[in-house]
Amino acid sequence: VDSPNSGDHLDDRPDLTDEFAVIDRLRVRFEAGARSLYPHQAFPPAGDTWIGDDAAVVSIGAGTGTDARGVWTTDLVVEGIHFDLGICSLDDVGFKALMVSVSDLAAMGAWPRYALVSIAAPSGTDLDLLGEGLATAAELAECAVVGGDLSQAPTLVVSVSALGILRGETPGGPVLRSGARPGDHLLVTGPLGRSAAGLRLLRGGQVQDGPATAGLAGAYRRPMARLREGETARLAGATAAIDVSDGLVADVRHLGRSSNVGVALDSLPVADGASEAEAMGGGEDYELLMATPDPDRLVEAFRSAGMASPLAIGACTSHPGQYSRAGLPLPSGGWRHGF
Amino acid sequence: VDSPNSGDHLDDRPDLTDEFAVIDRLRVRFEAGARSLYPHQAFPPAGDTWIGDDAAVVSIGAGTGTDARGVWTTDLVVEGIHFDLGICSLDDVGFKALMVSVSDLAAMGAWPRYALVSIAAPSGTDLDLLGEGLATAAELAECAVVGGDLSQAPTLVVSVSALGILRGETPGGPVLRSGARPGDHLLVTGPLGRSAAGLRLLRGGQVQDGPATAGLAGAYRRPMARLREGETARLAGATAAIDVSDGLVADVRHLGRSSNVGVALDSLPVADGASEAEAMGGGEDYELLMATPDPDRLVEAFRSAGMASPLAIGACTSHPGQYSRAGLPLPSGGWRHGF
Repeated sequence: VDSPNSGDHLDDRPDLTDEFAVIDRLRVRFEAGARSLYPHQAFPPAGDTWIGDDAAVVSIGAGTGTDARGVWTTDLVVEGIHFDLGICSLDDVGFKALMVSVSDLAAMGAWPRYALVSIAAPSGTDLDLLGEGLATAAELAECAVVGGDLSQAPTLVVSVSALGILRGETPGGPVLRSGARPGDHLLVTGPLGRSAAGLRLLRGGQVQDGPATAGLAGAYRRPMARLREGETARLAGATAAIDVSDGLVADVRHLGRSSNVGVALDSLPVADGASEAEAMGGGEDYELLMATPDPDRLVEAFRSAGMASPLAIGACTSHPGQYSRAGLPLPSGGWRHGF
Repeated sequence: VDSPNSGDHLDDRPDLTDEFAVIDRLRVRFEAGARSLYPHQAFPPAGDTWIGDDAAVVSIGAGTGTDARGVWTTDLVVEGIHFDLGICSLDDVGFKALMVSVSDLAAMGAWPRYALVSIAAPSGTDLDLLGEGLATAAELAECAVVGGDLSQAPTLVVSVSALGILRGETPGGPVLRSGARPGDHLLVTGPLGRSAAGLRLLRGGQVQDGPATAGLAGAYRRPMARLREGETARLAGATAAIDVSDGLVADVRHLGRSSNVGVALDSLPVADGASEAEAMGGGEDYELLMATPDPDRLVEAFRSAGMASPLAIGACTSHPGQYSRAGLPLPSGGWRHGF
């Protein structure tokens, strides 16, 4: 249940005061409230994952005589923060809102089945165009939009909640952020920095009009959730994963902190046309960062599925709190929005 | 998946152009996108209810070897539209945001199990106070907040997605808007107009400080979803239900239209301190409007459960599109936000 950092990838940090601390306090408060609902059980119930990962895993079958579990997330995009209507259109906004939400499911190895859309929009907003983008993304994600809510508001805000399942004959559990172990290899599903570079080009007016999905601008306007990659990684034994929404530097720390490992990066796959800084800190690429003790198995699984090979970028270490690149400490930074 | 109309209960209508038509077009577009996902099945799958009711009913067990179904909704509240921070506090906002969402589940006869909260908030917003209200409402609704998302935004928007189940040994199906038949009796779970009257008193400065939940002001600030009532109505054979969020006049029409029946009201339970107009059009009461062929059974079920008796207000007729009160046509009006 994570969100992109900001449309301003690199330097404009949101100033919600002490956001990490606020989210930790909210987590404590929400868990305290829920604990009384499970007086005679492990808390959260065994197999569930609640606050603290890309998505929540909930026992939807409880009380219905089955053990079905859903993987469930919500993400919101806000005008002026996550998108700028001067450089993308309303169908891009709808597309992105749905994709960033299902990207959280991709990071768990889950597949989206259903989505609900909440739209707060200024009067006169072309909701058909917004809906076209939502529907297009839903089709690509093979997910049905089954309801929603609509309100007038001074600023456009689109929140998408997505509900998914773990597919496969022996689905096992989801891929959490917390499962990486020292020695695990780290890989990403593709080169980084495309979205940030696209934003830079769009802001500079350096983009020729073309297909909305094309090139770096397309990576910013219409990111693609790595659903097949996430599911493949889960079935190939990945121990942890996270989508690179806040930027590699931030998301490496999220994964390391959740798994209680350090991270040593030794390689940085920079996308063509992107800078190293954009690849390190840009975010909104929605590539997956994956940990595995057996990278050959992961690479082979991707190859068998006809997907581009994942790219090795480093390894997990037994030094929690230590994050390095080529032996030098990683810059700090990273803002967490999901909880 | 329905929402309150507006903080301005009676006269300030949102001016999203032609909102009914927009939502109908979105529904068509989303269904067209999803249809290809179910090429060899009934669409939506048998037992599912998607766009068009208070909440969506989805086969979360599909693909996992079970037939578990979830009842799922999203609702959002927007500063200046659904609440005014001059007359309610941030914990009231959190409380209301959660309650209006689970109220949609109440109307289906479902019980909330989990909630996700999406918060878009201006810098400096006291998120702990907002979270306190969310958590308090979640405890009352016996529902666990299992995740969320947070972003900076110029205007406070809180969207809550709630996932529930149909409880009971023989749960049967949910109570839809569409199940009422001519001759069915209509009842409401309580007198109407409390929230609108509370808003009027708060705006007029006529409220003494007191417990946040007290009296008419409390009905506006901290509405209570009728969860036990909705579940009891389902198990007692109610054929249709809707929560009175948009106002009785509007919600009678929603139910009538979905069920293809007319409605003849013969009684109006006006809350103490509320005007007749507030009871008819105010909305945000979150009482349930229920249809049943056997009102005695419903009344007895409520009595056995120790709840206040539901109040008879009229009946369904075999004249779709005709809505009357004491023989006179109901005023038109009513705005639909959920879909």
